[in-house]
Amino acid sequence: MTPARGFPDSEYKERVKRAQAAMQDQDIAALLLTTEADVRYFTGFLTRFWESPTRPWFLVVPVTGNPIAVIPSIGAVLMGKTWITDIRCWQAPNYEDDGVSLLGDTLAEVAAKGARIGVPSGLETHLGMPLESWHRLNSQLESRNILGDGGVLAGLRAIKSPAEIAKIKVSCGIADRAFARVPDIANAGSPLSAVFRRFQITCLDEGADWVPYLAGAAEQGGYRDVISPATDTPLIPGDVLMLDTGLVHDGYFCDFDRNFSIGPPSQAVQMAHAKLITATHAAFEVAKPGATAANLFHAMDRIVGGGSEAGRLGHGLGMQLTEGFSIIPDDHTVLRPGMVLTLEPGVVLGPDRIMVHEENIVIGDKNAAWLSTPTSQDILVID
Amino acid sequence: MTPARGFPDSEYKERVKRAQAAMQDQDIAALLLTTEADVRYFTGFLTRFWESPTRPWFLVVPVTGNPIAVIPSIGAVLMGKTWITDIRCWQAPNYEDDGVSLLGDTLAEVAAKGARIGVPSGLETHLGMPLESWHRLNSQLESRNILGDGGVLAGLRAIKSPAEIAKIKVSCGIADRAFARVPDIANAGSPLSAVFRRFQITCLDEGADWVPYLAGAAEQGGYRDVISPATDTPLIPGDVLMLDTGLVHDGYFCDFDRNFSIGPPSQAVQMAHAKLITATHAAFEVAKPGATAANLFHAMDRIVGGGSEAGRLGHGLGMQLTEGFSIIPDDHTVLRPGMVLTLEPGVVLGPDRIMVHEENIVIGDKNAAWLSTPTSQDILVID
Repeated sequence: MTPARGFPDSEYKERVKRAQAAMQDQDIAALLLTTEADVRYFTGFLTRFWESPTRPWFLVVPVTGNPIAVIPSIGAVLMGKTWITDIRCWQAPNYEDDGVSLLGDTLAEVAAKGARIGVPSGLETHLGMPLESWHRLNSQLESRNILGDGGVLAGLRAIKSPAEIAKIKVSCGIADRAFARVPDIANAGSPLSAVFRRFQITCLDEGADWVPYLAGAAEQGGYRDVISPATDTPLIPGDVLMLDTGLVHDGYFCDFDRNFSIGPPSQAVQMAHAKLITATHAAFEVAKPGATAANLFHAMDRIVGGGSEAGRLGHGLGMQLTEGFSIIPDDHTVLRPGMVLTLEPGVVLGPDRIMVHEENIVIGDKNAAWLSTPTSQDILVID
Repeated sequence: MTPARGFPDSEYKERVKRAQAAMQDQDIAALLLTTEADVRYFTGFLTRFWESPTRPWFLVVPVTGNPIAVIPSIGAVLMGKTWITDIRCWQAPNYEDDGVSLLGDTLAEVAAKGARIGVPSGLETHLGMPLESWHRLNSQLESRNILGDGGVLAGLRAIKSPAEIAKIKVSCGIADRAFARVPDIANAGSPLSAVFRRFQITCLDEGADWVPYLAGAAEQGGYRDVISPATDTPLIPGDVLMLDTGLVHDGYFCDFDRNFSIGPPSQAVQMAHAKLITATHAAFEVAKPGATAANLFHAMDRIVGGGSEAGRLGHGLGMQLTEGFSIIPDDHTVLRPGMVLTLEPGVVLGPDRIMVHEENIVIGDKNAAWLSTPTSQDILVID
């Protein structure tokens, strides 16, 4: 059954409580958040309006008390529907002062002089405001120190609550059903661009709210890369068609792919596919609390050997298509219950031919569980 | 007829030439670009992979010579298909050095000590790399000054080439046809969420590559805001249904909306709609080379008076859903041939009821031309 949309206020309050405990440990007086996922994590502010780069959006999380939204007035109504009550607005864009002094005043209210303000600054983050505004904010805040957030946000978001996992599971189910319908929308002769279009339609038809991400490829005996847009080239027998989607249900992503052979697969393609599935299952067996991301890498790398140019064999997943740790030898993140991730091994079939497979799993108390329905070793064949 | 995908190399070379002339004027030795639209503008690197926040992507445009791509190796194949030949890769993510020293070395190669490196820093921009990497890059570059780009990028991107305008026109045509089919997908009793889903399907069916943006609302006699996601509430007679889409064809957006009355409109709704159309046409008449964004604002504001919380009555449009100038009293941008924009007046119908209308136009040598097919004064009625 599809869980209710949104979260109860208690979920957000719990997130704030955990954030504040971590902030206290690191002596952070306030967090300044500027990106879609970080702002939504504490507020539930869900809108596709972030697609417009014009207006910056800010959330201040003080070490005690409730978060304060400092946002353009166009968002006041929607933010007013969330549990946030302290909502400060300016009419953006404002060429004199685009929310900077309102934000600075708010931060000054919750962070004394000399105090530390934390802004997510590590890998995968970016600052959701213009550099000019950033410099201005820094001078306005005088002796307060705007530094990194010490990984507070990444740490919190890494562990998903049962309610979050339920949403990701819904997304995975939608993609599962859409992939099952690929034989109805892709055949020898179909231009890849039409397949992309029809696959997105199928995802929506199966219940996706929207389809932020679709990549894929179709080439003879494997493909060259996994991030190119679709061309109008028609599928032909011997092509391996790969579709990789990140669709969204209620603000949570799935991210997995499926490979299809157009006509009977070559032995090399079939063997490569079987190897990918074997590697995925090997990692699944390793994926228990206490294992590390590097352990997962080696479990797969042992089988697929060498891998692809992607540089990683999976990653965390949730409010963003990719988030949190990477499955690479240097990532020693310890798996804990509630972590959601992709297993994404790649094999090289030739000088410019790869294949990539991907599944989504969640770490439980003792073992992992599949969120996507795992594929069989035999590559799916479209006649 | 749909124009060919992509652009000839000559288009990119012309863009670089114009950039370099502007850089010379401002004594900028190199531009550092870090965001999807800016990187694509000079390269043609088109991928939905930017949805993943994990890996940063860089383009260096020196004041002489060709642009240099400094990118994760997962993008090497796709970048290799563009006209860019100097492509420097690292295997990202790299926890020791995520492309920073490769980028620093590249910048140091094209910008002597003491030289100015320009990074877009004004309104609407953000830095597409983590703050920690940014600080590291700044120390690596010693006495070189990383400053703003003096508006070089915004200035270039503001004027669309005929080939760009042709792509935007295709997007507008797709949305025109999708809006014409709304009576087939929305009726009294349809949950708004289902209407959103079906409308996105319709956009894809009419030829959209993807649908990055859809917002809308359906409430009695107008709506409260224009950025909320869809609820499952069914449409009922008296609702004003508004759908606002930013769909993409070959990397270029349209951005306009349509209002529909579920059952016969009230007189207030019909009058509001007529006023919005009148305001749009008034701005269209003013929209000629030499007029300013502020002129457009006043032409509409005179009619709709007071407007909404949106804070602006339109904006530039192109590679992003919103880009460039804003139609507000403080924006004195002078309209020039090749500018593409939205006219987006709003009216207030009551304490928590607004209506917004939007069309897309392009500035020609003497007048503006419609890119979307303008709507009649009578609100469209769904029986």
